[in-house]
Amino acid sequence: MELSPLQTARYEYRPKLPEMLKNDISNIKATEGKSTRSVSDQEDISKLFPNTYGMKEVTFERGKNHASKKKQVVGVILSGGQAPGGHNVVTGLYDALKKTDANNVLLGFRNGPSGLLEDKYVEFDDEYIDAYRNTGGFDIIGSGRTKLETEEQFAVAAEVCKKHGITAIVIIGGDDSNTNAAVLAEYFARMKTGVQVIGCPKTIDGDLKNDVIEISFGFDTACKTYSELIGNIERDANSAKKYWHFIKVMGRSASHIALECALETQPNVCLISEEVEKKGMSLSDIADQVASSVVARAANGDNFGVVIIPEGLIEFVPEVKKLIGELNDLMAKKEKEFGALSAWEDKYAFMKENLCAESFSVFSILPLDIEKQLLMDRDPHGNVQVSRIETEKLIISLVDAKLRKMKAEGGYSGKFNALNHFFGYEGRCAFPSNFDADYCYSLGYNAFMLVSYGYTGYLSTITNLSRPAAEWKAGGIPITKMMNMEQRHGEKKPVIRKALVELDGAPFRYFAERRNRWAVETCYTFPGAIQYYGPASVCDITTRTLALEQAK
Amino acid sequence: MELSPLQTARYEYRPKLPEMLKNDISNIKATEGKSTRSVSDQEDISKLFPNTYGMKEVTFERGKNHASKKKQVVGVILSGGQAPGGHNVVTGLYDALKKTDANNVLLGFRNGPSGLLEDKYVEFDDEYIDAYRNTGGFDIIGSGRTKLETEEQFAVAAEVCKKHGITAIVIIGGDDSNTNAAVLAEYFARMKTGVQVIGCPKTIDGDLKNDVIEISFGFDTACKTYSELIGNIERDANSAKKYWHFIKVMGRSASHIALECALETQPNVCLISEEVEKKGMSLSDIADQVASSVVARAANGDNFGVVIIPEGLIEFVPEVKKLIGELNDLMAKKEKEFGALSAWEDKYAFMKENLCAESFSVFSILPLDIEKQLLMDRDPHGNVQVSRIETEKLIISLVDAKLRKMKAEGGYSGKFNALNHFFGYEGRCAFPSNFDADYCYSLGYNAFMLVSYGYTGYLSTITNLSRPAAEWKAGGIPITKMMNMEQRHGEKKPVIRKALVELDGAPFRYFAERRNRWAVETCYTFPGAIQYYGPASVCDITTRTLALEQAK
Repeated sequence: MELSPLQTARYEYRPKLPEMLKNDISNIKATEGKSTRSVSDQEDISKLFPNTYGMKEVTFERGKNHASKKKQVVGVILSGGQAPGGHNVVTGLYDALKKTDANNVLLGFRNGPSGLLEDKYVEFDDEYIDAYRNTGGFDIIGSGRTKLETEEQFAVAAEVCKKHGITAIVIIGGDDSNTNAAVLAEYFARMKTGVQVIGCPKTIDGDLKNDVIEISFGFDTACKTYSELIGNIERDANSAKKYWHFIKVMGRSASHIALECALETQPNVCLISEEVEKKGMSLSDIADQVASSVVARAANGDNFGVVIIPEGLIEFVPEVKKLIGELNDLMAKKEKEFGALSAWEDKYAFMKENLCAESFSVFSILPLDIEKQLLMDRDPHGNVQVSRIETEKLIISLVDAKLRKMKAEGGYSGKFNALNHFFGYEGRCAFPSNFDADYCYSLGYNAFMLVSYGYTGYLSTITNLSRPAAEWKAGGIPITKMMNMEQRHGEKKPVIRKALVELDGAPFRYFAERRNRWAVETCYTFPGAIQYYGPASVCDITTRTLALEQAK
Repeated sequence: MELSPLQTARYEYRPKLPEMLKNDISNIKATEGKSTRSVSDQEDISKLFPNTYGMKEVTFERGKNHASKKKQVVGVILSGGQAPGGHNVVTGLYDALKKTDANNVLLGFRNGPSGLLEDKYVEFDDEYIDAYRNTGGFDIIGSGRTKLETEEQFAVAAEVCKKHGITAIVIIGGDDSNTNAAVLAEYFARMKTGVQVIGCPKTIDGDLKNDVIEISFGFDTACKTYSELIGNIERDANSAKKYWHFIKVMGRSASHIALECALETQPNVCLISEEVEKKGMSLSDIADQVASSVVARAANGDNFGVVIIPEGLIEFVPEVKKLIGELNDLMAKKEKEFGALSAWEDKYAFMKENLCAESFSVFSILPLDIEKQLLMDRDPHGNVQVSRIETEKLIISLVDAKLRKMKAEGGYSGKFNALNHFFGYEGRCAFPSNFDADYCYSLGYNAFMLVSYGYTGYLSTITNLSRPAAEWKAGGIPITKMMNMEQRHGEKKPVIRKALVELDGAPFRYFAERRNRWAVETCYTFPGAIQYYGPASVCDITTRTLALEQAK
């Protein structure tokens, strides 16, 4: 493998640990706090987790290590989408495990949870681990999206653990994967397998977050990578002065990424899905909001701008949600009748006849190619594929239509040339920022401390993150503490509640207080590329979101 | 303006100058070398430039400054597309000008050459200049694409210069802008205005390059920005193991950017326009080349990969060029007849009837939306708009068709899920790399030395660039030296020859020797984000292209 100069240099980086984990392993003591209860639905959840509900919070402190001494064989799994820093969770885990006892073993299951079920793994050694220190990606063992959720799977997992003498499984994943980790922990406890399960909070989306998880790892690096690009495009827009750039960023469920990027780059417009839903905004409302910025700037002679759009936006627009629901019903009920139509005109007429007036009016303002795509490009269950809609192009088309109308009516005389971008894959595997490199290494290191102290069904937590690493706090919380009951695929299930953008939270309020000015003036900031060396002000600061949340 | 931490930190950066320019201004001496002649068409070009042809090469050295002392009023213009480092050309020019005499004046004409014609300018002072040191973009004064090429324009320019007492104009631009700078210099000399003209070589495309210009500025930073993203995507592909990413990068005329990105990231496939043209490759040949990598990797179980595509590719495919030419002729000749057709079937039949068999077969393998776009979305002259074709999607569609056929025939059993990206605007306004920051500052500083020594029609040159900055050489060459006669819009014109990728040059040969292995194996390298601080191995090295070209 040919290494880039940066990769070679990053091997030398020594991630910073919280002061309390920097002690010699023999000097790290677990202290238990209060018993916990789930955030809601306590009765249901305590019944579902009779062996792992109500456990105590744990904090690590300086003091004599009182963990029982036994050989640990730990299996680690990367689950779901990539997030920068995943490799450092593994290297931190490995280092703590080997420092505790050189005979301890770390197995990495390949390509996600399926590696555990199929018994595909690698046993890590120094050489293998060293090649991945402080690097991006999940290629150390690969990742996958298989869900560990059935009793049959758990039984297979138990067999594989038994075969290798595995004492604990560490699962690095998002809200779903950690929910499943809790269910697996409960199963292992019920079956008295003796195998512990520890989770680590991963997702660039930033929606695995609550009063005990300040932020999931990867969010920092991904947002900084997108913000670098958005800032560069802002500077280009402000230099060329002739394009409006519509930039979609990843984040299907929550708009944390869009919001953080907006805080870092101060674009003219940033749409926030949660606000669109809360206010019940229509597509036309959204187009109005963007168009009003275009018009106001054009009046100042500025026929350029930047708009940030969260990936999941369209699914938060109430009228679109309704249309999609109706379309799915309609296709299911009248599949044959619709399938018999071949000309577009006939299909369109069919929609007019069968959709309610409101939904048809939403359908009819969509650009032709999106109308066609909705009707033709359906998933194996016959459902329309909302995620295929190129939201950034849809918004451009709607705004363009508004502006043409205004121009015809004399309310606008500017030029509107729009370009679109989508940033997602560019940020999921970047070299982790110093923050993510440190945070992830600490999460992994700390996960092993939880293992060695015999905890199961816990999430590794590192907190106080807006302070320097030395002041971070390390510990663990029972995953059940974060759970509530939610409807999933027609069933009530215990799940970790997804954290959406809070409209009364400090980050959104900061944005909302300034956005009217940003919409008209040019207030761009240019974050530039992530720096791993140089002034601490540039290299060691995490997100604006976290800083605002913690500035109380 | 709210500044990012990096922007604040970059203000402190002091660009490195070549040793020979580091002397006190009173100790920089111009030494003249041999008289020059144009690279070809000497007779034509010498006739067109009677006042500025055949001038001598200039080098700056340590020695008593013998420039005549007069107050200098210099106007600077940013011309054409943005390139990282443009601001540093201006700051270098400003610093040399003010160091020479605090009474000297630097005017910045706004929004490109039109600023000179419209007399829109700013007079720079320390505060203004300091806000743009080491930053990306051209927003210091804006840029524009107006071409300075007619006698009428030159007369207006002369008037404006006279009004402000301007002694010299510095034009920062690409091959066309520098060609026009030479013509303007000749005009000013002929009209005895006393106004000098100096050019500086700008373009991220890297195609303004010859035996005296080692590289244009901005190429380094833009390629590094794209390579960061491509490397991140490679790492994502290698982690998720389920997507083929098709990445188009800027570069309409030449494939230097694509090639440099390939050298930095080692993707599975990188197409090079110049090779496609030289070998007379068809669309089908191109699709075969990509498909063969997909098939070979699938046989190893690797259903993922990365393909780099230069923006201008399609215009280099001989059969497409022919098709486009025929289409344009046909539309011109039979506009009414074609315009009368409304159904797509009729338009398609019209093409079948009127295009030659070869061109129709090319037309017919295009995906439907590209066929439609070609026929419907024409420019104001009625010509088809090749640049609108989303080449990356076209290639995906052609490769997909090949693979389906092979699958049906039993020659391929993998999975092919493709995603597309286009990187261009993301890199044109990045904070300049240390290399571009140093190079540009030196170019600007040096441009003023040429001004003070009375030269006109010269390009500011800094050479020996693959060595540390202290060893760089500073000087100037007559722009006419780089010229030849070319057919432009039906007329023979003196122009600077564009530098395409040389298939027998060291960079392409390096790539060609390795690409068969890269096509099958996973040999990705991950450059990561541009670093401005940290180890010199990471921060101060320019492109692989230049290193290979100069490793003789």
